[in-house]
Amino acid sequence: MDYVYGPGRNHLFVPGPVNIPEPVLRAMNRNNEDYRSPAVPAMTKILLEDVKKIFKTTTGTTFMIPTTGTGAWESALTNTLSPGDRIVSFLIGQFSLLWIDQQQRLNFKVDVVESEWGQGANLDILASKLAEDTAHTIKAICIVHNETATGVTNNLAQVRRILDEYRHPALFLVDGVSSICALDFRMDEWGVDVALTGSQKALSLPTGIGIVCASPKALEASKTAKSVRVFFDWNDYLKFYKLGTYWPYTPSIQLLYGLRTALDLIFEEGLDNVIARHSRLGKATRLAVEAWGLKNCTQSEEWFSDTVTAVLVPPYIDSTEIVRRAWKRYNLSLGLGLNKIAGKVFRIGHLGNLNEVMSFSIIQILHIPSMIRNWLELGNRKGNGLIFLA
Amino acid sequence: MDYVYGPGRNHLFVPGPVNIPEPVLRAMNRNNEDYRSPAVPAMTKILLEDVKKIFKTTTGTTFMIPTTGTGAWESALTNTLSPGDRIVSFLIGQFSLLWIDQQQRLNFKVDVVESEWGQGANLDILASKLAEDTAHTIKAICIVHNETATGVTNNLAQVRRILDEYRHPALFLVDGVSSICALDFRMDEWGVDVALTGSQKALSLPTGIGIVCASPKALEASKTAKSVRVFFDWNDYLKFYKLGTYWPYTPSIQLLYGLRTALDLIFEEGLDNVIARHSRLGKATRLAVEAWGLKNCTQSEEWFSDTVTAVLVPPYIDSTEIVRRAWKRYNLSLGLGLNKIAGKVFRIGHLGNLNEVMSFSIIQILHIPSMIRNWLELGNRKGNGLIFLA
Amino acid sequence: MDYVYGPGRNHLFVPGPVNIPEPVLRAMNRNNEDYRSPAVPAMTKILLEDVKKIFKTTTGTTFMIPTTGTGAWESALTNTLSPGDRIVSFLIGQFSLLWIDQQQRLNFKVDVVESEWGQGANLDILASKLAEDTAHTIKAICIVHNETATGVTNNLAQVRRILDEYRHPALFLVDGVSSICALDFRMDEWGVDVALTGSQKALSLPTGIGIVCASPKALEASKTAKSVRVFFDWNDYLKFYKLGTYWPYTPSIQLLYGLRTALDLIFEEGLDNVIARHSRLGKATRLAVEAWGLKNCTQSEEWFSDTVTAVLVPPYIDSTEIVRRAWKRYNLSLGLGLNKIAGKVFRIGHLGNLNEVMSFSIIQILHIPSMIRNWLELGNRKGNGLIFLA
Amino acid sequence: MDYVYGPGRNHLFVPGPVNIPEPVLRAMNRNNEDYRSPAVPAMTKILLEDVKKIFKTTTGTTFMIPTTGTGAWESALTNTLSPGDRIVSFLIGQFSLLWIDQQQRLNFKVDVVESEWGQGANLDILASKLAEDTAHTIKAICIVHNETATGVTNNLAQVRRILDEYRHPALFLVDGVSSICALDFRMDEWGVDVALTGSQKALSLPTGIGIVCASPKALEASKTAKSVRVFFDWNDYLKFYKLGTYWPYTPSIQLLYGLRTALDLIFEEGLDNVIARHSRLGKATRLAVEAWGLKNCTQSEEWFSDTVTAVLVPPYIDSTEIVRRAWKRYNLSLGLGLNKIAGKVFRIGHLGNLNEVMSFSIIQILHIPSMIRNWLELGNRKGNGLIFLA
Repeated sequence: MDYVYGPGRNHLFVPGPVNIPEPVLRAMNRNNEDYRSPAVPAMTKILLEDVKKIFKTTTGTTFMIPTTGTGAWESALTNTLSPGDRIVSFLIGQFSLLWIDQQQRLNFKVDVVESEWGQGANLDILASKLAEDTAHTIKAICIVHNETATGVTNNLAQVRRILDEYRHPALFLVDGVSSICALDFRMDEWGVDVALTGSQKALSLPTGIGIVCASPKALEASKTAKSVRVFFDWNDYLKFYKLGTYWPYTPSIQLLYGLRTALDLIFEEGLDNVIARHSRLGKATRLAVEAWGLKNCTQSEEWFSDTVTAVLVPPYIDSTEIVRRAWKRYNLSLGLGLNKIAGKVFRIGHLGNLNEVMSFSIIQILHIPSMIRNWLELGNRKGNGLIFLA
Repeated sequence: MDYVYGPGRNHLFVPGPVNIPEPVLRAMNRNNEDYRSPAVPAMTKILLEDVKKIFKTTTGTTFMIPTTGTGAWESALTNTLSPGDRIVSFLIGQFSLLWIDQQQRLNFKVDVVESEWGQGANLDILASKLAEDTAHTIKAICIVHNETATGVTNNLAQVRRILDEYRHPALFLVDGVSSICALDFRMDEWGVDVALTGSQKALSLPTGIGIVCASPKALEASKTAKSVRVFFDWNDYLKFYKLGTYWPYTPSIQLLYGLRTALDLIFEEGLDNVIARHSRLGKATRLAVEAWGLKNCTQSEEWFSDTVTAVLVPPYIDSTEIVRRAWKRYNLSLGLGLNKIAGKVFRIGHLGNLNEVMSFSIIQILHIPSMIRNWLELGNRKGNGLIFLA
Repeated sequence: MDYVYGPGRNHLFVPGPVNIPEPVLRAMNRNNEDYRSPAVPAMTKILLEDVKKIFKTTTGTTFMIPTTGTGAWESALTNTLSPGDRIVSFLIGQFSLLWIDQQQRLNFKVDVVESEWGQGANLDILASKLAEDTAHTIKAICIVHNETATGVTNNLAQVRRILDEYRHPALFLVDGVSSICALDFRMDEWGVDVALTGSQKALSLPTGIGIVCASPKALEASKTAKSVRVFFDWNDYLKFYKLGTYWPYTPSIQLLYGLRTALDLIFEEGLDNVIARHSRLGKATRLAVEAWGLKNCTQSEEWFSDTVTAVLVPPYIDSTEIVRRAWKRYNLSLGLGLNKIAGKVFRIGHLGNLNEVMSFSIIQILHIPSMIRNWLELGNRKGNGLIFLA
Repeated sequence: MDYVYGPGRNHLFVPGPVNIPEPVLRAMNRNNEDYRSPAVPAMTKILLEDVKKIFKTTTGTTFMIPTTGTGAWESALTNTLSPGDRIVSFLIGQFSLLWIDQQQRLNFKVDVVESEWGQGANLDILASKLAEDTAHTIKAICIVHNETATGVTNNLAQVRRILDEYRHPALFLVDGVSSICALDFRMDEWGVDVALTGSQKALSLPTGIGIVCASPKALEASKTAKSVRVFFDWNDYLKFYKLGTYWPYTPSIQLLYGLRTALDLIFEEGLDNVIARHSRLGKATRLAVEAWGLKNCTQSEEWFSDTVTAVLVPPYIDSTEIVRRAWKRYNLSLGLGLNKIAGKVFRIGHLGNLNEVMSFSIIQILHIPSMIRNWLELGNRKGNGLIFLA
C-alpha cells in the first residue's frame, strides 16, 4: 500500500529527507549481508576515509552512527563535555532551539544567545562573552551552520576568527545537518572540533546514518568527558576500528552501499561543483520568491541559505494551508513553518541531488502565489501559468 | 555505469518510452519465476481480462505478445489478412509511414491515402473509395489513431460512421500505440476489429509487451488468413488459452507483475480520469506553446493530440539542436522531428503517468523558447526565468 | 561495486542481519517522503498498533526508534531506571555480557548472575535474591530471552513465576532481539515490562529500527526515572503521539514501508505459524548437527534455541577457519564463535523469513563437517555429498 | 500481490527463466530513458560488440531483438532461407520439435531426422544425406545444441566435421538457447552460420531479448533470402547500425542495462570459468540422481547436459505430481516432463548464475526421492533428511 496521492511522482521539496538519486536507490536494493564478513569492514574502512572529504578534513576521525541528526548531536556533546560544563549556544530557529533543549537536558550550563528568527547568530555577543571569559569557563561553542527552519546560514569562518582573536580554547561544535556537502564547509581550515550531518540531507540517502567528525582536540576531550554514554560512545567505535572490524553493533548494509554510491556521485560531480549547484539553485529560488512579490524570511543577504528558503506569506494567509493544498492537489511536499513562525512561512528545500528542471517545476511560473490566490479565490489564473487547473 | 548526464533526475518528455511510476518499478523488482507454475497462468488469466478494459471491449480477445509496437502491427496484419489483399492505409506522419512500409513488405496491396504532415487522415477519400468498392475488394482499413510524429489524432468514430454508411465489411485495424489508455478509445462502440498498443506508452511500463485486441470478426478472419506467421500467430496463443497454461513461449515475469500494478493504478484513478488528465495536460502544453509564440505542427484543433505536441520552430533554427541542448544542459529528453519534419519540430510528450508539477517543469516558464533564444544568443535571459543559468 | 564473492547468491546464515524477503525489498525500493505529510503519520499510527501483536500485548506502548538493538537496550534502561538502581542481570554469553557492560556504564548497580556459556540463566539464584530482597532494593530483572552467542533460550515464564512467588515489584526487562517474532514470547501473559527487538532480526528487515515495547508499569516508571536521556527519551515520542505527528525526529521512510510489508507477511502466515516454522527448522538443524557427529554448544534441551544453533567443533579445529572458508569458498555466511568460545564454535542462524529448502542448503548433507574434513585434509569427499568439489 | 507460496525464497530450478543475480536486478531497477538520446546508442554499440564474446566469434554480426527464443528462431530462418528451401533438422525432444514445427509452417521443406527422446541427433543420417546431396539441394542444417526437454547436448563440432568432409555449403543454424554462455560453444571455430540464445537463459536476465549472431555467410544469404519478414528483418537493424542509432524500434532500456551487468559478471568470472562451473554443477546433479537410485533420461554419457538434467521416475509414479508437490510444499520450481515424456520425467535446471550452495539445496540429501516416497506413503523419512517435515 502506498499512501502518496494520485498519479505521477511525489514532488519532494522539503529540506530533508530529500530526493534519492536513482543510482543510490539501485545500490540499496539488496539483501542483508553479514557485517562480520571480510567484505563489510573492507568497505567501511574506505567509507570512513572518503566521508572525511565532505567535511574537508584530513585530520578528523569519522563515525557513521546508526541514528538521526538528533542522535548525532547527542554523540557530539556527550563525547566531548561533562555535566555542568558551560557552553555558548545560538538560538535562531526551531532546530537550534531543539539542540539547546538537548544541551540543557544533558545537564550542560548553556549561555543561550538568541536572535530574532530570520537573523543569524549574534556573533558580537559571542565576542564579548569570550572577551570576558579569561578563565576559560566556556568549554564549547555550539552553532547550527544552517538553520533549516528560517533559511539562515551562519558565518562559521567568523566564529573561528573570534575564537582565535581571544585565543579561546573552547571546543567548536557545528551542526552541519543541512549544510555539509551542500554549502561551503571547511572543518580543518575553520578549526571545527565536531561537525555532523545526517544521511537524509545533502547526501541524499534515506535516514539512518548520523555522520560525526571529530578533530584531534575533540578526540582528546572524549578521553576525559564525563557525560554518560554507551550507544553514542566514540570509544566503542575506536576500539573496533583498531580491531579492523569497525562496528560495535550492526550497521545497515543497505545504507553503507548507498553511501558508497552517494559519495561516488558527489566526487564525480566534484564537491565544489555540488556546492556551486546549490548556490545556483538557491539564488534562483530567491529570485522566484522576489518575482512572486513575496518576502524571504531571512532578513539579510549575508545569511541567505542555499539549501532552504523560508517564504513569508501575507498576514491574512495561513501558510499551513498552502502546504496542505500543495500536497493534496499537486502531490507536492513543501516545508511547514515551525513554532514561532508556524502559519507564517512555508519552506522550499533546494537541498541534495537536484537539477535545474526539478527546481523549475516549483520555483518558476509563480505557481505558489497562484495557489495563494486560488485559496483566496481572487485568482486571475490566466496570468500565472495555472490556466489549466480548475 | 549510468550513461545519463549529471545530478538529479533525467526528465523524460518523449512520447515513449515514458516515465514509469514508482509502484510499477517496485512490482518489477523481482527474480524470475517458472511460467509453468500454477501462479503465472492464474495471474495471466486475470490480466487478459483486465486489459480488455483499456480497450473498452467486452467481446474482444487479448494477446500480450513479447514484442514491441512494430511486432504488434505485424501480429494485427498477418493474423487477419492474406498476401495480395487490398487495404486502405493513411499516411500522415512517420509512424503511419512505417506501418505502411510494413504492410507493403508483407505483400498487401496498399491504397495509400496521404495527407500533409500536420493534418489528419483524409476520410473523404476513404468515403469515396468505399463508395466505389461495391465488390468489397478492400479487405481492411488501417489507421493510426494518434500519429506520434506530428501530434495528430484521427477521428475513429468517423471512420466507423463511413464504414457503416457504405455497409462495407472491411476490417477496421487501429494502431493505438500512443492513444490507448490515454485518449478516448472505444473498441466495441466504434466496431474496431484489431487494436493494439505497447507497454512503454500510456501503460507506463518498460518496452516488451505488444498488447493486441481482436474482435470476434478479426478472430474469424484469422482462421482463413494466409499470411505466414509463427511467432505472431494468435492460434498458438488460443491453443494455450484453452489448455489454461496461456503461454506458447516464455513471457517476462517482471512485465506481468508490472502490468498488474499499472492496471491497478489506472483502475484506481479511473480510466476516464486518466483520459481527462491527459486532456488537461495536453491543453496546458498547447497553451504554453501559444504563449511562447510558437506554432503547433498540428494544423487544426480537430486533430490536436492530448499525448504529444509537435512544436514548429522558426525556419532559422534547427530543432535537432534544441533537443540536443535540452538533453546535454538540462538532462531533459524531448522528441526529435522525424523524416520530413526533421529539424523543423521538436516534440513534447505528455503521455503516461504524469501529473501537473511534472508537466510544469517543462511546459511552463517559456524555458524552451529561452533555449531557442540562448542558442541564437539573442536571449534576454532575465525575462524568461532562466536568469540563474550562465 | 559489490564486495560479495563469486557467482550466485550469498547464503546468509548468521543470526542477524537475516535474509530480507523479496516483497520487503520491493516495498523499500522508494524515494524519500516528507514525514510531516498526512501520509506518514497515518501509516505510523497503524504500525504502532500492529507491531504490538508481535509482542503479544494489548496494553503495551510501542516505540520504533531509529537505532540498533544496542540503542533499544539503552532506551529500555534509561527510561525506567535511575543511576545507582540495583538490578539483577544474567551473564550467559556475549550479548548478555554486552548488555551488562552497558548497564554498568549507565551507572546501575548490577548483580551479575553468571552461568557457564552454553547454559541458561540461573533462576535459582534469582529466586534466592528475590527471597532475600524484602526491602525491594532490586529495581529490575534484566534478561536476554535468547542468547545469540550460544544458542540458549531462557525460560521467561519461569522468571515471571519466581517474581510472582516473591511478590516482587521489580521491573522485568527483556532483550528479545533474537527471539521476538520467532520464538514463543508473551509480553502481557508473562508480565514483561519492557521488551525489545531489532528490525534486522526476526522481522527480516535491514538494520535501523529498535522496536521497544513498554508496559503501563514501565511507562509509569519513566515518569520518575532519573537517567539522563534525550535521543532515547520515550517522553519525546509520547508528546508527538499526542500531537498525531508521531516523530520527534526523522524516521526512515523506507523502513516504515518495509515494516508494513514485513508485518503483512507475518500476519498472513500467522504469527504462531511463524513460530512453529522456526521450531521446525531449529529442530532440523539440531538433528543435522547430531548426524554430523558434532555437539551443540547448548548444554541441555531445555535451553535449545530455535533461532540459532552454536556448533562445537573438535578441539583440534579452529572454528574461525571454518567460517572463513565457508565465506570464501561457498559464499556462505556463518556466525563466528565470540569471546570465550571464539574458535570453538560456529553458529548457524535459522532466524527470519526462511523455508525448508533454504535451510536444506546448509543443514543437510554434512557439508559443514566435510569442510572440516577438507580442512584437515582427511576428507573422503565421496561419502559426504561434496564429491563434486575439487 | 505476489502469487508465490509461503515464507522464504522461491527456489527456481527450471532450465529457464533462471535466477537473476542481485547486481542485475539492481541494474534494471530504473526508469525508462529516451532510446534516441546519445546515451542509449553509445551503450548499444558496446553491447553488440561484447555480446559476440559469448558466441566466441569475432566475425559475426549480432542482433538483440525484443523477442523470445521462438522469435529468435524465426529471425534465424527467415533471414537466411526462402520458402521451399530444403533443410535437415533433428527431432530429439520437445524444443527441437517446436522448431521443426516452425520450419514447416514457414514453408521450408524439412528432412526430419528423428532420434529416440533421450538420445542425441543422429549424425550418421546427416552424413549419408550430405553424401547423397551432390547437387547441394540442402540449404541448411538446423540443430538444437542442447535439448532442454531431455537434457541432451548435441555434438556440434562433429556436425562441422561432417559438413567439411562432404564440402557441403549448407548453412549451419544452431539453437543455443539453453547452451550459449553455459556450455562450450565456438561459433567461429565450428563454422556456425547463425546461433541464437535468449536473455532468460544462461545470461540470467528476464525474458525479452532474443540474441542472434550471424556469420558473414549468413549475412550474405540474407540479401537474397525471400522469406517474408519485417519485425525480424536483419536489414532494418543493419540500416540503423549504419546510422549509429541502432534501433529500428524501441528496445527495453532496463534489459540493456541488465545485459551490461550480466556480461560484466560473466567476463569478471571468465567465460571459461562459467562453463567449468556449469560442468561441475551438472556432474554433481547427475551424481545425486545416481545416488537416489534414479535414472537419467539422457541415454549416454556423450550427450549429458551440463545445464539441465531430466530425471526418469519409476513407472508407478507421475512426475507431474512430484513437480506439483515440490512447488506447493517447498516453494520449489522443477521442470515438468513435456509431450512424449510427460509424467515420466521431471527436470532440474542447473543453468545460469548458480553456485554450489544453491545447488546443494536441491541436488543433495535425496529430497526428491523422499518426496516420491512420501507420495507413495512408503517413506522412511528418518533416513533421508526430511525427518523434520510432517
